[in-house]
Formats: sequence, C-alpha cells, structure tokens
Amino acid sequence: MDIEQQVVEVAYALDTFYFLMAGALVMWMAAGFTMLEAGMVRTKSVAEILTKNISLYSIASVMYMLIGYNIMYSDGLTSLIPGLGFFITGDNAVSEVLGSGGDIYYSDRADFFFQVVFVATAMSIVSGAVAERMKLWAFLAFAVVLTGVIYPIQGFWSWGGGMLDQIGYLDYAGSGIVHFTGAVAALAGVLLLGARKGKYGKDGRINAIPGSSMPLATLGVLILWLGWFGFNGGSELKVSDVESANAVAAVFTNTNLAAAGGVIAALITTRLMFGKADLTMALNGAIAGLVSITAEPMMPSPLLATFIGAVGGVIVVFSIVALDKVKIDDPVGAISAHGTAGIWGVLAVLLSNPDATFVAQIAGLAAIFVFVFLASLLVWFILKMAMGIRLGEEEEELGADVTECGLEAYPEFTNK
Amino acid sequence: MDIEQQVVEVAYALDTFYFLMAGALVMWMAAGFTMLEAGMVRTKSVAEILTKNISLYSIASVMYMLIGYNIMYSDGLTSLIPGLGFFITGDNAVSEVLGSGGDIYYSDRADFFFQVVFVATAMSIVSGAVAERMKLWAFLAFAVVLTGVIYPIQGFWSWGGGMLDQIGYLDYAGSGIVHFTGAVAALAGVLLLGARKGKYGKDGRINAIPGSSMPLATLGVLILWLGWFGFNGGSELKVSDVESANAVAAVFTNTNLAAAGGVIAALITTRLMFGKADLTMALNGAIAGLVSITAEPMMPSPLLATFIGAVGGVIVVFSIVALDKVKIDDPVGAISAHGTAGIWGVLAVLLSNPDATFVAQIAGLAAIFVFVFLASLLVWFILKMAMGIRLGEEEEELGADVTECGLEAYPEFTNK
Amino acid sequence: MDIEQQVVEVAYALDTFYFLMAGALVMWMAAGFTMLEAGMVRTKSVAEILTKNISLYSIASVMYMLIGYNIMYSDGLTSLIPGLGFFITGDNAVSEVLGSGGDIYYSDRADFFFQVVFVATAMSIVSGAVAERMKLWAFLAFAVVLTGVIYPIQGFWSWGGGMLDQIGYLDYAGSGIVHFTGAVAALAGVLLLGARKGKYGKDGRINAIPGSSMPLATLGVLILWLGWFGFNGGSELKVSDVESANAVAAVFTNTNLAAAGGVIAALITTRLMFGKADLTMALNGAIAGLVSITAEPMMPSPLLATFIGAVGGVIVVFSIVALDKVKIDDPVGAISAHGTAGIWGVLAVLLSNPDATFVAQIAGLAAIFVFVFLASLLVWFILKMAMGIRLGEEEEELGADVTECGLEAYPEFTNK
Repeated sequence: MDIEQQVVEVAYALDTFYFLMAGALVMWMAAGFTMLEAGMVRTKSVAEILTKNISLYSIASVMYMLIGYNIMYSDGLTSLIPGLGFFITGDNAVSEVLGSGGDIYYSDRADFFFQVVFVATAMSIVSGAVAERMKLWAFLAFAVVLTGVIYPIQGFWSWGGGMLDQIGYLDYAGSGIVHFTGAVAALAGVLLLGARKGKYGKDGRINAIPGSSMPLATLGVLILWLGWFGFNGGSELKVSDVESANAVAAVFTNTNLAAAGGVIAALITTRLMFGKADLTMALNGAIAGLVSITAEPMMPSPLLATFIGAVGGVIVVFSIVALDKVKIDDPVGAISAHGTAGIWGVLAVLLSNPDATFVAQIAGLAAIFVFVFLASLLVWFILKMAMGIRLGEEEEELGADVTECGLEAYPEFTNK
Repeated sequence: MDIEQQVVEVAYALDTFYFLMAGALVMWMAAGFTMLEAGMVRTKSVAEILTKNISLYSIASVMYMLIGYNIMYSDGLTSLIPGLGFFITGDNAVSEVLGSGGDIYYSDRADFFFQVVFVATAMSIVSGAVAERMKLWAFLAFAVVLTGVIYPIQGFWSWGGGMLDQIGYLDYAGSGIVHFTGAVAALAGVLLLGARKGKYGKDGRINAIPGSSMPLATLGVLILWLGWFGFNGGSELKVSDVESANAVAAVFTNTNLAAAGGVIAALITTRLMFGKADLTMALNGAIAGLVSITAEPMMPSPLLATFIGAVGGVIVVFSIVALDKVKIDDPVGAISAHGTAGIWGVLAVLLSNPDATFVAQIAGLAAIFVFVFLASLLVWFILKMAMGIRLGEEEEELGADVTECGLEAYPEFTNK
Repeated sequence: MDIEQQVVEVAYALDTFYFLMAGALVMWMAAGFTMLEAGMVRTKSVAEILTKNISLYSIASVMYMLIGYNIMYSDGLTSLIPGLGFFITGDNAVSEVLGSGGDIYYSDRADFFFQVVFVATAMSIVSGAVAERMKLWAFLAFAVVLTGVIYPIQGFWSWGGGMLDQIGYLDYAGSGIVHFTGAVAALAGVLLLGARKGKYGKDGRINAIPGSSMPLATLGVLILWLGWFGFNGGSELKVSDVESANAVAAVFTNTNLAAAGGVIAALITTRLMFGKADLTMALNGAIAGLVSITAEPMMPSPLLATFIGAVGGVIVVFSIVALDKVKIDDPVGAISAHGTAGIWGVLAVLLSNPDATFVAQIAGLAAIFVFVFLASLLVWFILKMAMGIRLGEEEEELGADVTECGLEAYPEFTNK
C-alpha cells in the first residue's frame, strides 16, 4: 500500500472508530433512562417500565433500520417531505474513499449505528412521562410510529438537509431535534392520558408520589452523563484532524461543565425554595444542563457552558413546579428536563454561535412543536380509540407489573 | 522519525487502542453478569453470587495469565494437544513492527488483555446456572480449572490454530468457543448438583422462584449489550484500514440489531404463549440474540442479523421451558441463552458466510461439547468427592449469604 | 493537505481521542464511588450520600475550571508555591501543532478534561469516610476548598513540575497524589467528626453496621475497576507511537491483574481470619489492588503486578481492622483502601522502576501528608466553628435523608 493511501485509510479508520465508540456511549444512555425511570416510579410499576425501556430501544433499532433512516437521510421529494430509500445495504469501497478527496471519511454503517441510538433516545424520553398508567402495548405501538416515521420526518428537515437546514436552524447534537421532540411527543400523550390516580387532590392539592429507589435514579443520571459525551462528542462527526480533535475536546469539556452547572444551580434553587437539598431536582438539573448545551456544545467558553447549564438547572425546577400546577403529571420530570430545557438550549446557541439567528431558532422549535405534537396526538388518539391507552382503574391500583408483565420487580421487598 | 515509519506507528497505535477499548468493554460484561445474576436469585443468595462473580473474574485473570493463555496460543504438540509456553513477558519492539510488513499490527499485551476478558465471560456463564445451591469454594476451585485448562484447550483447537481451525470451523467471536463452552460446563455442574429445593414439586409441578430484583437483572442485560460491542467488535482484531473499519462498523450494527431482534421475538413469543409480556424472557431474548450473532456478526445484512437474533429470541423461550420440563434447574436461564442459542449461532454462520460448511460447524460443536462436558463432569465429580459441591439442606434454606459469606445483601429490606 | 501534515494531524487526533475516552472512563468512576457508598451505608443515609456525590463531582468540575487547574499547571512562584493563570481559554492552532516538532500532541481542552475528573476522584474518597454523620452543606463547602485549592497545590508539586517532581518523586497515575491525598483529607475530617453513634460500645466493643445494599456496593467496585483503565491507561498521556501504545497496553494488563490479585488476597485473608468469604473485604481488596498499582502500572511484569495488588489486598484487611481498633470510623473503608494502600503503592514503585529512590518516595508521601492533613484539618475546623460539621443527635438518629434532603431513598422498602 502506498503511503498516501495508508494515511487516508488510517484517518478513515480513526473517524469510524471514534463514531462507533460515540454510538456505543449513546446506546448506554438507554440504560440511563431505564434506571432513572425505574427509580422514579413506585415499586408496582417498575417491571413494566423496565420492559418498556428495553422494548422501545429494540423497536427503535429495527424500525429505524427498516424505515426511519431511509426517510431521514433521503434526497427528499421537497424540503418539507422526505423521500424513501434503502441506504444501509453496503459500505464504502476503498476506491470510493480514496477518490472522494476527503468527503467520505467514515463508514456508512457507523453512521447508521450512531443515528439509530439517537432515535432511541428520543423515544426513551416519552417512556418516563407516561409511566405508571399507560398500557404497555399501546406504548410500544406508539414507539413503532415515532421511531419509524415521526422522528425521522422532522430529522430530515434539519440533519437530512431539509427546510430547517436551509433556513439556518442550528442544533449541533439535537436539543430540539432529539430532546424537545421526545418531550413534545410525551406531552401529547400525557394530555390524552391524564394524571396518575391520586396525584392531584380534589382540593387542588398536589400529592408527592416518591420514587421507589433513589440509587437507581442517580445511577441513571450518571449513566446519561457519561453517555452524553458520545451524544455530543460524536456529533462533530469527525476527529481526525487538529481542528476536529480540538472541537471534540471542547465538546467533552463543555458538556461536563454544563451538567455540573445544572446540578449546582438546581441544588441552590431548591435549597432557597424548599429549605432542603432535593436530590431529584439535582438529578433533573444535571439532565437539564446536558440538554441545554446540546444544541451548541462546541463554541462556548468553559465559563459560558457552565452558565448555560446552570440556567437550564434553574429552569427545570420552575418548569416541574409549573407543570404540576396545571396538573400535567410527569413522574420523572422528562417534559421539563428535555422539553423546557431543550427550548432554552436551542435559543442558547445565539450566545456563542455567530451564524445563529433568532428567527431560525424559533422557526425550528415551532416547526418541530407543531408537527410532532399534532402527529403524536393523532397517533395517541388512534391508539386510544383502537385499543385504549390507559390502564383500567383496578389495573392502575394493582400496578402495571402484575397486570401487564405478570411478575413483580421486587417480590421479597415491599410490605403488602 | 521518517514519514513512512510514523504512519506505520500510528496505525499500530490505533489498532492497539481499539483492542484495549474493546477489551475494557468486555471486562464490563463481568458487571453485566454480576447484576443479572444478583437480580435473578432470591435475596438470601445475593451476597454469595456477588462474591462468586468478582472472585471468578479475578481467578480467570490470574489463571489465564499463569497457564491458560500459554496453552491456548502455544505452537501445539499436535493439532489436538496444545503446548505450553510463557508468552506475555515482553512486547513488540519498534524495529520488529516495522520489519514485519504489516503482520504485527498491535501490542501483544493488548492481545492478552482482550483474550483474558473472554475466558472470564465463559466462566461467568457457569456462575448463574449453579446459583443458590453450590458451595462457594467448590465453585471457585472449578473456576481455577476451567479458566486455566479446559477453556484454553478447546480455544487452542480453533483460535490457537489447532484441529478445528484446520477443518474450517468458523466462529468469529465465539458463539461456540466462549458461550457454548460456558453453557456446557454449567450443564455438567447442574446435572451433578440437582435442582434447588422446592423448584420441582413431587406432583411434577414446576414452581417459579422469582428473582429478587428486576432492575438489577435489566441493568445486567444492558451492560452485557454494551459490552458485546467490544466482544464482537474487537474480534475483527484490526480497524486501521478501510476494509477493517467497515467490518467493525458492520459488526456493531449487526450486534445491536440481533439483540433488538431477540428482545422483540421473545416478547411476542411470551405474549402469545402466556398472555403477558414476560420481562425475564425479554432479557434472555436479548442475550440469546447477542449469542446468536456472535459466530458471524460481520457478513450478514442488517435484516439478516435481525432475523438471526429473532430466531435466537424464540429458541431461548422454548429452551427455558423445555429444560424446566426435564428438571434441569437453571435460575438465570444461562444454559438456554448461551448454550442453545450458541448452537444456533454456530449454525447461522452458514446463512451468510460462503466459506462455512455444515460439517465443520457441527464438528466444532461436537468437539467442544464432548471435551468440555466430560472434562467438566470429571472436575465437578472430583470436587464433589473431595469437598462436596452442594450446600447442606439447612444451609440452602438459610441461604448462602449467611452461611458462606457471613453477611446479608439487603440487611434492612426483607421481612423475615 | 500535504501528507506529512496529515500524518501529524492524525496522530494528534488519535492522542486527543484516546485522552478523551480515558477521561470519560474516569468520569464514570464518579458513578462507582456513588454506588459503592450508597451500598455501604444504611438506608437512612442513602439519599444524602447520593446528593453528596453528584454535587461534589459538579463542584469539583467547576472549581477546578475556575481555580484549581490554573494553580496546578501554573509556572509557579517557587517550586513550593504555585502561581495562578487562566489556561483553558483557547486551544492549539494547527500551525502551533505542526511547528512544535511533536511536543504538542494532544488538545489542551482534552488535558483539562482528563485532569478535572482526577480531582473529582480525590474528593469522592472523602465522601465515603465521613458518611452518615456529617452535615451536607459543610461537606460541600469542604469540597470547594479541596478541589479548588488543596489538591491543586500538592498536585503542582509533582505533576505541575514543582518541588516533588524536582527531587524525583515518581507517581505515574497518582497513588499518592490522588488517592493518598483523598484519604488524608478524609482522615482529618473523621478525626474532628468522631464515630457514628453506636459504632463503638462503651465496653470497647466494635459494632458492625452493615451496608444496606451489597449489589450496589459491588456494582460500584466494578465501575471503579472499569474506570481505572482510563485512570491509569490515560496517564501515559500518549498512545500514537509503538512505544507508547505498548506502554498503554501494559498498563491495562497490569491494572487488571493488580485488582484481581487484590480480590483473591483479601478473600483468602478473610477466609483465614474469620472463616467466611467477606464480600466487603473482597471489594476493598479490589480497590486496594488498583490503588497499589497506580503509582507504577507500566513497568512491572504481569506477575509482579499481580503480587503488588495482592499485597494491597492483604494490607487493606489489616488496615480496616486496625482503624476500627483505634475507633476511627470509616463506613466504607476509604482511608484504608486509598490511604494505606496508597502508601504501599508509592513505595512499590521501587520494585520495578530503576529511577525511583526510597528517599524521594518517602519525601513525597510526607509532603503530601503534612500539607493535606494540616490544610484539611484547618478547613474542617473553620467549618466546624462557622456552621458545624456534625448532624445533631436526633438528626443522625432519623438519618440525613430526611433531615438534609427531605426524601427517602427507598420509601416503600424498609420496615419502620
């Protein structure tokens, strides 16, 4: 092999390997959502939420392979309507790579792998918000549509080169495209589904329903924190030259600092508001910090990244309190941590990226909201009509573990 | 340093680093088995199974360094009988690498590290199957022999260039060499050991013994899923050129899809058979899907990989039910997920790899089965005679945690 | 881009990526400490220790960015007293990298990221030792000072090129600089704080206070084990040539073997001493083995690495027993596993590194001990005067979860 070819091949291999490692870290976020949600629900719903999480990840993987990926990265009929192809049959030949003048710098399969774990992330967000009262199979049916069609269509608009990309909407790793999307789909479901029994008293009282295991919830957030280095770090798409490597390093640093800022800000906020250090708010502060930096993790200085995350950590506390006031029951705080903080993240791009415009960022959020909300509402509604989406009263009382899965999560632990 | 040398060195460094990261992911599978098994046994056996798992990994590491590696990659006295050397004293000098014309492309130590975590995987499989009734120290004594001698001898036959390699047995990352081997060794132990007290009633009734913590079991499977990217992805052995990088990317994609296929298939199967979504079967479906694709994760198309995993997910459900019918008590389903699915995985190579032959694949399975089963049976039998392998009746009733480890896994939780 | 430049850039990218992945693994150790500590305390202190851990990591990240890093890697006023700069504003331009003749081989931001997770590790060690009786906000205030000032000053002495570096103190990845430092800071706190109520009886009796969840503790140790590949493996700082790649591979292998040696030795020691296989001692044996090899994980042969770890595994058992005898109450064994084993680790450098001298190693330990102990004692004392560091008697009885965090870790599990 001549030396010039070998250099190109090594660079290609490095970028591919970097992409695969980043994808593996994002896959690991599935475990993060699973543990977080298992810790935040009551024992009687734990086995069901575990089943939901491992199933939704599996469904996302298959549906995105069959349909989603082929919509999202299609040529597009128009900039609004994607096309459909089948793009993961082969991979780049050596001659193609060498002849591309550096345009092809990683494996197509690695690209698919990295993208597939993103769609699973979006779907995981939905899972937490509808916990403890939704029918398992209705949820899985929704997963089929969100991961196969809804997410890919709006993804086509930006990352697939569609209309949002053309107007200059900037969203590096998907504060809007992934996290806000998941939160909006969840919101539509929660509105149709209603609150858990006993969550809101007749006298306007809001009853806390404590999660069953704080260690699992904390583990989940730390897993997400780790996985986010892949989520944001991989979104540079390339590492094999000095500029790209510096960019990836900046992304890692800023991602970490934004999460840290989110934790500290949420902790101080709850201390001032409630007089205690509320662990669940600190955890949501971490996630909100991460979501906030996701739309632009590369350009901010470390100080600015910390600040962006900290604002996210404050926002999430107020958002959780506000949603409870309007009786939107979100057992894990997903709509606030991914949705409200996601909006902030998309807008925060304006603080550091000179190419961002307020109009394009708002237009992106609006387009995602309108489409994802209406499409999700429609699908949830059809499912409600066709099979029902909410557990029966007695089933909810007994818990989804027994009624949906036929087993208990902790058969020897709880007092019944 | 001249430019040609530097390119060779960078490629060597990339392959070594890739190998080390893959090995670290496989090491992480030790945590996966530990959590899975801790979740699937009763609270009274949890501390003991944790002790077993961290100890078996440690024993595997040391025994494979002292003996196993030096058997498995020896020149071999014949193609059946390995030799013995001491191969991990040094590492490749720069001049050797440069002079090898590309034949030496990663560090010898990295090779050892990658191999050592594989043998630990095989031993971890045994741990789950014999849970809740075996004496701790008898188990650890078996671990010494399996990881030091039994696994390396059959490993020599294929990966060490012995007889199975010579007849064309193909097993990319070890559906047979690692997973089937572990399952067969477990089967021999379980047959000598008998079922847990109360598992099978006198009237032929099979009593379910629910695992103590579904979140831990699920976490374990998600850890295994992540670790498997290293297990299969590292088995390409090289990443530093376009062809290898594409291969590794295909392996990551297919591994993920096979696991997803396994989950979905197991879920649908249990829904049809039992009317519920059985989480433990979905978890075993994931493992079975992963084991099924392990013998050939590179050649199948994404669709075929999903199918191969899905078949594994169906097989594992029937295998678990069937083993219970013949009163083979396997608390975590390891024999089915690694053994039965392992057989399917070895045969599924025929679906995509034109170099595979039915005869060679069957011969490989037969050779592994006969040798590993008889050798394991002999060792278990000697241990039974020498020190006993089964806990006393009262000890089993009390639980191994108290009798073997002198502590409880959850001292404040259970009602006693 | 000409070919020579591209080779330099790819090497720079590989080293940067390697550094970032190592840093991500070390960040993951934060989850390890969190789970370990959550498993080793009683249920009533679990939520608080989770809050402490995620908060200390966040504080460490921000304080080290604001102050610590800028002290530790400053030019230094003298070799004893560091300076202060602001070093993470930019990154290396391509021209600087190319013009450096190989001296600049990774991104500055990646360096910061790798260093920041180290300081968090040191602080995590403190957390476990003072568990179940310290006020949350006093602890967090200490975290601000340790991570912003105390750790960086002693870090400047060695890794920043100060006085310990100049006398030839050798500590590859920080047995002394990170682990011993954390343990000494913890010791100072524990001495001022006193033992948990009921730990030591009036008749000299030592009461065991069992940890609430052995699976979480074990998971924590396995996370640490995995993370340590980044901790030690990244400390080579470079991977992009044959010599460096071989070194990193040796570090991975030795790190794994030392941990394995620590487990086996601790297991055998407790079996001989107490007649049982004590899981918590095996877990501390793993950590002690890892700490022991950290000062020199590259030079030892695999056999020697196993031995160094095994000695650590024996030492930690005796150290834990001895500290209990003198009524130093360390709920997780952190002072022994990181401190006592840290001393052994620093001295064990003499076994394989010909450049190490007994005098320099002892001088390093002495300097770290005197400074960190006195500085920590002073800070703890000021905090004691200013806000109190110990929970009130009734608060300790109720548990820090309720009094400090206002929630329970396992609201549905325990019998009260």
